[in-house]
Formats: sequence, C-alpha cells, structure tokens
Amino acid sequence: MASHEDHQSRDSPKVLLFKPPPSMNLIGEQPFTSTKFQYLKAYESPLPLDQFLATHAKSIQAILSSGSVPVNTEILRQLPNVRVVVTTSAGLNQIDLPECRRRGVIVANSGDVYSADVADAAVGLLISVLRKITVAGRYVKQGFWAARGDYPLGSKLGGKRVGIVGLGNIGSLVAKRLEAFGCQISYNSRNKKPSVSYPFYPEVRELAANSDAIIVCCGLTDQTYHMIDKEVLAALGKNGVIVNIGRGPIIDEKEMVRLLVQGELGGAGLDVFENEPDVPKELFALDNVVMTPHNAVFTPESMHDVAKHVVGNLEAFFANRPLLSPYMDD
Amino acid sequence: MASHEDHQSRDSPKVLLFKPPPSMNLIGEQPFTSTKFQYLKAYESPLPLDQFLATHAKSIQAILSSGSVPVNTEILRQLPNVRVVVTTSAGLNQIDLPECRRRGVIVANSGDVYSADVADAAVGLLISVLRKITVAGRYVKQGFWAARGDYPLGSKLGGKRVGIVGLGNIGSLVAKRLEAFGCQISYNSRNKKPSVSYPFYPEVRELAANSDAIIVCCGLTDQTYHMIDKEVLAALGKNGVIVNIGRGPIIDEKEMVRLLVQGELGGAGLDVFENEPDVPKELFALDNVVMTPHNAVFTPESMHDVAKHVVGNLEAFFANRPLLSPYMDD
Repeated sequence: MASHEDHQSRDSPKVLLFKPPPSMNLIGEQPFTSTKFQYLKAYESPLPLDQFLATHAKSIQAILSSGSVPVNTEILRQLPNVRVVVTTSAGLNQIDLPECRRRGVIVANSGDVYSADVADAAVGLLISVLRKITVAGRYVKQGFWAARGDYPLGSKLGGKRVGIVGLGNIGSLVAKRLEAFGCQISYNSRNKKPSVSYPFYPEVRELAANSDAIIVCCGLTDQTYHMIDKEVLAALGKNGVIVNIGRGPIIDEKEMVRLLVQGELGGAGLDVFENEPDVPKELFALDNVVMTPHNAVFTPESMHDVAKHVVGNLEAFFANRPLLSPYMDD
Repeated sequence: MASHEDHQSRDSPKVLLFKPPPSMNLIGEQPFTSTKFQYLKAYESPLPLDQFLATHAKSIQAILSSGSVPVNTEILRQLPNVRVVVTTSAGLNQIDLPECRRRGVIVANSGDVYSADVADAAVGLLISVLRKITVAGRYVKQGFWAARGDYPLGSKLGGKRVGIVGLGNIGSLVAKRLEAFGCQISYNSRNKKPSVSYPFYPEVRELAANSDAIIVCCGLTDQTYHMIDKEVLAALGKNGVIVNIGRGPIIDEKEMVRLLVQGELGGAGLDVFENEPDVPKELFALDNVVMTPHNAVFTPESMHDVAKHVVGNLEAFFANRPLLSPYMDD
C-alpha cells in the first residue's frame, strides 16, 4: 500500500489547498479525495506560504478554493501552471475573475448543490421573522408565558408581496417555496427573464417599494456591492422585512443597522454579514432580527454533495472533459 | 344615538361571553361587534357566575366560546335557551359535543380561517428545528460566532419523509408547503382519503416508523388523546423530529420529554402543550427543541378574519340562515 501511495503521490496531478474549506472541516477529508489527483496542503507545511508556493509552483495545476480563500493576481502570478480554480462556494467574489480570464484559467463553482438548502434557509428566516418563532421561543424558554401571557402577534405570510433580488437557481427555489405559502412573488435581476411570469422590476428600489419583504439571492459583484442601500431600505419601509442569504456586502450594513435600530425597517433575517464572523452588536438586542452564522448551505447532505461535485469537477479537468459547473460570464 | 343603543340593547339577541377570547384581547372588541346581536359579558358583571347566568338565562340564545372557555353539561343545563355555540377556536375539545347534540344546540368553530397561519407555523417550526435557525441565532446573538467558529450542521429538508397526522384543512396546507421543499409526504387519519395520492398509514405508529418527521395536525378528541405515545415516539426514533400544532394532550408529553432528554428522539417543534401555559422545564435547555406559546394562529390578519367569521356565524344564526362553519360529526 505504501508503495502504491508513493507512486500516486509522485504521479497524480496536484491540487493546491490553502486551507480546508468549511465543508471539509465539517465532514472530513475523505469525501474530497480521489485516485485521480492529490491535494498539496499549504496549511500542513512548515514553510511560509510564498516559499511553499515557490517550491511547488511547477506541479500545481489546480486550486481548490472556498469562500474565504482569495485567489488574486498575486497568487495566480506565483502559480503559472494553474489552469483551473474549483471552489466549494457558490459565490465567486473571492476569485479575481478578470485575471483568471486573462490567464486562461477556468473557474468552476459549486453549481447548484446548495441551492435548495439556501432557499430553505431563506424561507426559514422569513417565517422566523414574520411569525416571531425565534423570539417567541426565547419567551417560552425563559419561562415568561405563564407569567406574562400571550406573546405579541406576528404577521401572516399569505398574501405578502415578496421581492426576490436575483432570480437564479436559489432565487427561483425561494420563489417556488413561497408561492406554496400564498406569497405574491416579483423580482429584480440584471435582465427580465422571458420564461418567468413573475412581475419584473428593473430597479431594485422599485421592487422594494412594492414589496413587504425582499430576499437577497444574488451573488456579490462590483455591480451588486451595496446595491441594497439607504434608498432601497427606505423604500422597503418600517413594516418591510429584508432577508439576506446572498453575501453581506450586497447590503449597506451600516445603514441597515441604523434603520433597524431606529425602527424604520420592520425586520431582518440575515445569514450573511459584511465582516464575518463579526456581526454588528446593535443587532443582538433586536427581537425583529433573526441571524444565522452563514450556515444556510450547511447540511450534511449538501456537504457530501459539494465534495462529490468538487471531485467531479477536478477529475473532469484532469481527464480533459468539460467541467460540471464552469463559470460563464454573462 | 343613546336611544338607538338602548333600543338595540333591549331588543337584539344576546350572546354570552364568559371572557374575551384571545383574539378579542389582541385586536379589541370592535371587529367582533354587530348591529344584529349583543354580547352579555359575564366578566364585567359583579355577580358570581351562577347568579349572572340565572339572571340572564332566559335571554341568552348563543355562546361565544374560545379554546380556554369550556361549555359543559353544567353550563348548558343553566342556559336552556341556548341554541348555538360559536367558538373562536378551530378545536372544539372544550365543548361537550354529545351534550350539545342531545340538546339540539348547534356548534360552529372557526372554520379554516387559521389554517394557513397554523400550516405556516408548522413549517416554520420544522425548518427551525432541522436547520437549527433558533439555536444558531442565539449563538450569533451571544457573540459566539467569531470566538467559536462554524455552528454544527443542521439537516436538509429536501427528501425528508414527513408524516402528517390528520390530513384536514391544516394538514393539507402543511403538505402542500412541504412538497415545495421536496419533502416526501405521507399521512395518517381516521380514514384513507380517496382523493389524496399521498401514501396512507392506518396506524400512526407505522407512519412514524416510516417518517423522518411527523407533524401533528389533528384535533383533540377521546380518540386522539395521547395517540402519540411512547411506542409512536420510539418508532420515530433518535433522528426523528416531532412537530405539534394540534393540541398538547395528543402527545404523551411526559414520555416525549423523557425521550428528548435521553436523546432518543431527535427534536421537537412545539406550539402546544399538555398544561398550557406551563411548559416542562426540562425542555428549556434543549437546543433541538423549538417552542412557541400556542400562537400558531396569532397573526393580525387571522384575528380579523376570525372576528368576521364569528360575526358571520352569529348573524347567520339569528337570521335563520345556515351557519358558515357548522360542526358535523363524521
């Protein structure tokens, strides 16, 4: 066995791993392994990163990245033989995509393996905010029910106008779920989708003005950075609810916090934040804010799915087959 | 105006109110009022209840009851002119139905005005338990994310086998919602429903043995009291989740608490309890238990709907028209 491993280790293509992605931390390395390639683990080396990269630059053909592992110009320059970057994340904001394009490096994200889980989490956050499930639960667990009586009313889902910001895989699944609750769906995206019958708003501020809740489902790009700004949040208004399962910086967090604290925004369900894992402390005391620690994608099922997907993408690359989920500019 | 009111007060039919239903406490009395009848409020009288009833027995033709106001043989005997009992509750377990039948008193519940809200709450509780939204939210609000890192995995909704106990209005709406999440629905009820294609289990224990989660959506009757007993919960097993938005005593709560504490049941989402507002304190410390204070029906929208429904039922009765939601034995 040892000699077989030595043989494999010598010959199989090398995939650089700066640090284990969260999914690998959560379910272990085994589901990410393959007989067709081998990970070079920068985090297990005693060498400083630059030296590690210099030592292995020649053999590294691929990088496995995750949401918190940037792949920037500097890195790409040090690794001229890299031809593919595969991520365990759906978002690619940590990757310098123009630089990859310039260098002919192809990029593959997690495809839609997380989409259903993220959509479920978005709906869970919305119900939890509207129906006060989290805060009413605390009320019960603190023993207040018997002493203080009925808990203040939540708000009905049925009939609520829900605006989806970004109607891709995830946004479409959120819409499908909320239709079953009797919500009225409309959406904003870069372009109107010809196959979709939901009302389309070309301006996100207009979407917010015509919605009881908006759900941020898009990716983070230069165009979507702080797209949900003071004006959009003001248009959503003091009874409006914002849910974010996209990326923190899509919302101007400082403005959102200010409006929530001042009661000028109705509530928020947040899985993502501008400076994770730091969360604005002003939100801790607000009963109309439900937060989860960027774990909308984290189920054992999706972790195993993404491992399979990563291995599939890398094996496809090394076998000169098309990737499972190549990133395409559009 | 005063003379008109006097006139109305003298002539309009009388509806007994023992105490304001929760919906009236929450949205006020006005939506429950009508020019066609008048409430006699026992709780505003200085007289002891028996004396109050004796004084007004002749004029009381109707009772407005709620979940916590029993209408038993004793009450009915004291009020021989009562011909109708209207409730603000969906459940009728507080009403002595056989005695009503014997006396020719017709009974009307809240119909399906709450069904969507209760179904929403059931789904919200299930997502919150499976995806750990409530407990992960506490983790964030306590400031643990930065210090302790990622939160333990929840569990995916998609593909979960969900057993609905009682496929009436509410159960059907729960099923419809969970289908949109990719759950596999099956059900138990008194009889197989010919128009329903979900798999039917005549025995609730069999349903539990073949489910990842069961959702109790039925009413409380002699037949359903402690129907979810030790054996059913054991069949659900240590990864199984129970959600109850029906009535507390449908579950053997003591057994459920024991199994949850011992880790032999996977989790629980509970809106109702055996001895409300008392909740077993053993549940307070369990992260896999999400509880709400019997408020699954409590949205402003449903409170106004039920007021309209109560008025509609009572006006129909006094006009000799059919009730909106007469209770029928089946």
